[in-house]
Amino acid sequence: MLTANQRIRVEWAHCDSAGIIFNPHYYIWMDSGTHALLQAAGFDLVGNLRTDKLFRGFPLVASNMAFKRPLYFGDISILTSKVEKFGNTSFVVSHEFRQGDDPEPVATGNEVRVWGYSDASRPDKLIAQAMPDELRALLAVDRIVDTSV
Amino acid sequence: MLTANQRIRVEWAHCDSAGIIFNPHYYIWMDSGTHALLQAAGFDLVGNLRTDKLFRGFPLVASNMAFKRPLYFGDISILTSKVEKFGNTSFVVSHEFRQGDDPEPVATGNEVRVWGYSDASRPDKLIAQAMPDELRALLAVDRIVDTSV
Amino acid sequence: MLTANQRIRVEWAHCDSAGIIFNPHYYIWMDSGTHALLQAAGFDLVGNLRTDKLFRGFPLVASNMAFKRPLYFGDISILTSKVEKFGNTSFVVSHEFRQGDDPEPVATGNEVRVWGYSDASRPDKLIAQAMPDELRALLAVDRIVDTSV
Amino acid sequence: MLTANQRIRVEWAHCDSAGIIFNPHYYIWMDSGTHALLQAAGFDLVGNLRTDKLFRGFPLVASNMAFKRPLYFGDISILTSKVEKFGNTSFVVSHEFRQGDDPEPVATGNEVRVWGYSDASRPDKLIAQAMPDELRALLAVDRIVDTSV
Repeated sequence: MLTANQRIRVEWAHCDSAGIIFNPHYYIWMDSGTHALLQAAGFDLVGNLRTDKLFRGFPLVASNMAFKRPLYFGDISILTSKVEKFGNTSFVVSHEFRQGDDPEPVATGNEVRVWGYSDASRPDKLIAQAMPDELRALLAVDRIVDTSV
Repeated sequence: MLTANQRIRVEWAHCDSAGIIFNPHYYIWMDSGTHALLQAAGFDLVGNLRTDKLFRGFPLVASNMAFKRPLYFGDISILTSKVEKFGNTSFVVSHEFRQGDDPEPVATGNEVRVWGYSDASRPDKLIAQAMPDELRALLAVDRIVDTSV
Repeated sequence: MLTANQRIRVEWAHCDSAGIIFNPHYYIWMDSGTHALLQAAGFDLVGNLRTDKLFRGFPLVASNMAFKRPLYFGDISILTSKVEKFGNTSFVVSHEFRQGDDPEPVATGNEVRVWGYSDASRPDKLIAQAMPDELRALLAVDRIVDTSV
Repeated sequence: MLTANQRIRVEWAHCDSAGIIFNPHYYIWMDSGTHALLQAAGFDLVGNLRTDKLFRGFPLVASNMAFKRPLYFGDISILTSKVEKFGNTSFVVSHEFRQGDDPEPVATGNEVRVWGYSDASRPDKLIAQAMPDELRALLAVDRIVDTSV
């Protein structure tokens, strides 16, 4: 599977009063990981999302995470994202957070998303459809991409 | 001036590793205060922002804050927002954060915003225009409104 | 079970470019729901978290959500939180988001948390322990509490 | 002056319903820019902030920004941060956001911070003091550092 690796620096902004990453930030990073993965596969994110006629999106229908051990201010984490499973109109993206070179993930999660589109006049009515075969093939290629900022 | 008071509870999510509110949250609350103020004046926020033809907005062109003393997890703050000044196409909203009944603000700030609109086909091209006289008059009424959730 | 209901107003700050709530905000609200629930049960959140000697916490070890339909800017949601299950040192809090009076949830989720404490000199070393029986009993009382701001 | 340049990618998470960066994110990035600048100067951020005896911090007492033109999802911005002025116990950090190679800033801002410390037993009582001469000298060196993640 196409695998996107993204470097994350734990900032002061990410940490709570216990001095560790406040958990919703991990969900923000999973969202970022999925966007970066689709872009790495060649999907024109900006062109599709900014268009004024047809809006293509991939809304989240479910997500989950397990937290093994906390990360602290100043830590560096690598987020690894790839498609775990293709459904008819849905797909699952798996995400693993590691600290530095440690092979053991500190946190893991999944996002279930639906592929769809909507008309500019009704951006809130998303019609689910099958992900294009071409994009699916590009996401299935065995390749590792660095999508760090 | 129309004055909007909004109750804020300092949540775990708002606090940083020093145990106090992380400053960008105050800027989020000022944004909320301005929205609540316009709505309290009778401006149909949702109807105007969700429309598919013409998008009316009031983007921020400048903002500032002074922080007198920190707030902590569990504190209750009252945010007081009102228009400070009307320009031609711009307007300044002042915001004061108090703790409980203490009359002395713990933080104060201003937002400079421009009144404008854009076409749905070019949502990113905002045309500045004068705020409607009627809305301006409603914002100038001497009245205090509770806009708490 | 003790049930905490919290009113949420969907703000401009919560919505993404598709005009709907950006998903991590739901995870922030679940965190808020759990804090409000424990406080409603009589647990002194601030006193325990701000103390300089012993820090009592209940870190998240896993979480998940399912999103049925989106919420938009201006919508009002009611978040209902209660303990779903008590383990030895862990406990599960269930969360349901409804829109206005609609009985059907728009989103549901769970948090798995561990009860524990740490010494001020090593705030990052949390020792899991059983939740006090008294608190457990208070969380098991059949009562509905409004924990809105 | 020591100048820290940090690359920022505008993510889906940063954009509001108008499709542009929601303003508080700029304030979050200024905070990150100041941390990166101090670290680039050789200040041991993590060692000082995580210590259990004495907590050294530099809380924000005022901040401001001017927004010239918006940035959109997918844009790359360079944030340039440097000390603008040293006071007795305070210092001003200036921040400029540019888009790609465009020399004209899209947004500019300032943070006024106070140098101080507190005892672990009273982390909320910060005592202002002069910034160490050595650190001041390191921040005054004419050098450009890339502090990107």
